[in-house]
Formats: sequence, structure tokens, C-alpha cells
Amino acid sequence: MSKLVLVRHGESVWNKENLFTGWTDVELSENGVKEAKTAGKDLKNEGYHFDVCFTSYLKRAIHTLNNILDELDQVYLPVTKAWQLNERHYGALQGLNKSETAAKYGEPQVKIWRRSYDVCPPALKEDDPRNPALQAVYSKVDKKYLPLTESLKITVDRVVPYYEEFIKPLLKEGKDVLVVAHGNSLRALIMYLDNMTKDEILAYNLPTATPVTYEFDENMNHGEKKYVCSEETLKAKMESVANQGKAK
Amino acid sequence: MSKLVLVRHGESVWNKENLFTGWTDVELSENGVKEAKTAGKDLKNEGYHFDVCFTSYLKRAIHTLNNILDELDQVYLPVTKAWQLNERHYGALQGLNKSETAAKYGEPQVKIWRRSYDVCPPALKEDDPRNPALQAVYSKVDKKYLPLTESLKITVDRVVPYYEEFIKPLLKEGKDVLVVAHGNSLRALIMYLDNMTKDEILAYNLPTATPVTYEFDENMNHGEKKYVCSEETLKAKMESVANQGKAK
Repeated sequence: MSKLVLVRHGESVWNKENLFTGWTDVELSENGVKEAKTAGKDLKNEGYHFDVCFTSYLKRAIHTLNNILDELDQVYLPVTKAWQLNERHYGALQGLNKSETAAKYGEPQVKIWRRSYDVCPPALKEDDPRNPALQAVYSKVDKKYLPLTESLKITVDRVVPYYEEFIKPLLKEGKDVLVVAHGNSLRALIMYLDNMTKDEILAYNLPTATPVTYEFDENMNHGEKKYVCSEETLKAKMESVANQGKAK
Repeated sequence: MSKLVLVRHGESVWNKENLFTGWTDVELSENGVKEAKTAGKDLKNEGYHFDVCFTSYLKRAIHTLNNILDELDQVYLPVTKAWQLNERHYGALQGLNKSETAAKYGEPQVKIWRRSYDVCPPALKEDDPRNPALQAVYSKVDKKYLPLTESLKITVDRVVPYYEEFIKPLLKEGKDVLVVAHGNSLRALIMYLDNMTKDEILAYNLPTATPVTYEFDENMNHGEKKYVCSEETLKAKMESVANQGKAK
């Protein structure tokens, strides 16, 4: 038996301002830090112990993980940081206000960009300073892998092979694994693990800083995912995510 | 050309209370967090960029590193945590007040335990809860490597092979490496790098949270180590360390 626990980072300063974030490296809000600590306390109360952790290259995920490990008193655990677990790249929408974008392009278009499976937002230009290929953070990643925009499908196409190569083998060995990442990189993984259709993933919202647990048997079969969180808090969080794309 | 930067963790809550700490996993003091941030700012001002980081299993070192990476805005860097970089194990002295110990055993004995090369403090008993072999943190380390007490020599005998196997090859490849560890694990490394005698290392004090830089050429020769810190701050810090073993 092994456990895989997925956690979406806490609220960031841009979630709070309702901006498209993607690969923009923004910090957790004060509330996001609190959410992360709560997730850590909830995991501790449920007696979770991990063997290894994964996170993205983005500080809102890394700091969520650090806060969780502090609360668990397991800061000594090995942590692998992978750009493949980054949020979906939102192309030229990065930095735009979600409500303004909805007012400009219409809610249906924004919903398509946010919630469709294979439609990419407008791409960044090569010389845009937001191009990851121009940033020190990604200097060691082969430029051919670095996106200028991404659909959920493209996100799935980098997250799932990473899971298959680096995370699944550890679960097979019986290790308990904690992954702290992003709304869409984790939806990509959940779609794969739960064998969801495109429509199902379109309708699925992952709340911030709420641990989701999969338990695997020795044949790598797993039951239903479970949330480590009170039901009331969970419902409130999911509604908050679903409302983000609506024009105000 | 490559750089190796060594940083001793900031003041811990036990440094502050003048207790022998060793492998006891105590937190940074508020002052220690400040010191770590200052070290990060100093490194940033000097334009340091790293490729990879190492630290111990102990939270005062891990949190010092986290604070430095926050200030450098390089939280995405890979970090390897290694028990081999832990502080020297202080055996049964762990948890005792340094001044009281000096009053009880005499300053010369305490100085021998603190500053000799090959004399171990009294060992922990096997069933002592402070025995690392009984702790979750070290559950994946082969018990034959886990100490009940250590001299500086024994510390050297685990730090130097770790450096040779895991850190030196990266420096040879031209990588810039940041190591955040402990007073004695770093003295062990500095003794080796600077080819110091036992008397020289006995007289050498490493200040907290003050980056020490070695620059290597392609033949792995290096010049004198440099401190990234104002001279005045450095002197004050070194005197503070030297005074810790004296009875009050």
C-alpha cells in the first residue's frame, strides 16, 4: 500500500486580484500561507508521514510545500522541483484580470480558454520577457520543451509522462508521495488517475491547499480519491474557484 | 571557474540559551532568521547565482537555506539534504548548558570536548530517545552510520567523503554550489579544503550565517577563502562564537 497526496498551492497574490497567472512567479498571499499551514495541520492530525515530495519551479507551490513540511515537522524530506509540474502556461493572458478579460472577450471565450481541453490562449511572442526561454529559472531546460502558451491537453502531455517516469515508480515501491503543484497541472494528473473524460475534467474544480489522497494497492489500483478537509470548507473552496471566471 | 559557498546556519534557540545542540533539531531564533536573510541579501548584492544547494537534515540549516534562497529569489534551485552534513553529534552533552558544563567539568575539559580533534564527549546509551537510530528522521539511514557521539575527527570522516562524492564533481563541472550546514561540519570541510593542521582547526571559529566563498579553477585549485560580510560584523560574530565555551 502506498499513498499519493496532491495539494494545490494556497491563494496567491494574483489569485486574490483575479489575474491570469500561469508561469508568472507570484508569491502566496497572507491567506495562502494560512491555507498552507492549515493543510499541513490537517495532514498531521490524520497521521500522514511522507517519504518524498515533488513540487514545481514556482514559489507559490514551493512555499506551500515548505509550510506544510513545517507543520508536519518533516522538513528533512527530499524534495524534487520540476518545471513539468508548473501551472498551465496561459500565454498572452498572463497578467490580465479575469473579469476584464471576460468583459472584453465574453464569458464563453474565457471559459473555453480556462476550461476547454485543447484550445490554447493567444501565444506569447518569442521576444516577450514572459517567454520562459529568456528566464534564468529555466536556463537548464531544453528550450524545445518551454511553452509560449498551453492548452490543458499540452499540460497533460508534460505532467503525465513526468508522473509515469518519476512518481509512479516510487508509489510502486510502497513510498508515500506528496505533490504540491497547481490547479491545472494537478487536474491533468487527476484526469489521468481517475480516467476522466474531457467533459468531466472541464467540470472538475480543485480547491486550493486541500490535500487529495489516493491509496494504491500493490497492483497500483486505487479507490476513490479522498479530501483531507472538513466538508463545509471544501464546498466553499470549490465554489470560490468556479466563480473566478465570471464577469463582475 | 566554479564557486563553493559555505554558510553556517543562523543563531538557533539553543545557541541563544548556550546549550550543546549537536543533532537536536532545534529551530532558528528570531535573530537567526534575520541573520539568514542578511546573508541572502549580501549574496544577492554580490551577484551570486547558484546551480545547486546542499544542506543537512536539521531544520536550523534547512530554514537558513530557505531564507537565503528567498532573498536571492532562487527558490527553484535543486536542494539535496544529507545527514552527512549534520552538526557534530555531541553525545550525552546534548541539551546541557555550556556554562554549567564548564563549571562542572572545568573549562579545559569542555574546551577539549568542543575544540579537540579526536576526543568524543560521553556517548548516548542505545536506548536514549536522543539516539538517532530511534528517530523517524534517520529511518532510511543504515544504522551502522548513525553516531552516539562524535569527535571532530569522526565528523571529518563523514563530511569529507560526502564532499568528494557528491559536491566536488559538481564543482569540477563548473557548477556554483551553496552548502548551508553547521559549525563543525563546515569546520571539517574547511580544514580539508585549506589543508589545516589540527591546531589550526582548533583555533578556527566560523561565524553564523556568514557566507564563505572558495573559487576553484579548472584544475580544482583555489585561492584563499573570502567572507561575504562587512569586516566589523565578521569580527563581532567570531568573538561571540569563541566566548561560548567559557564559564559565566
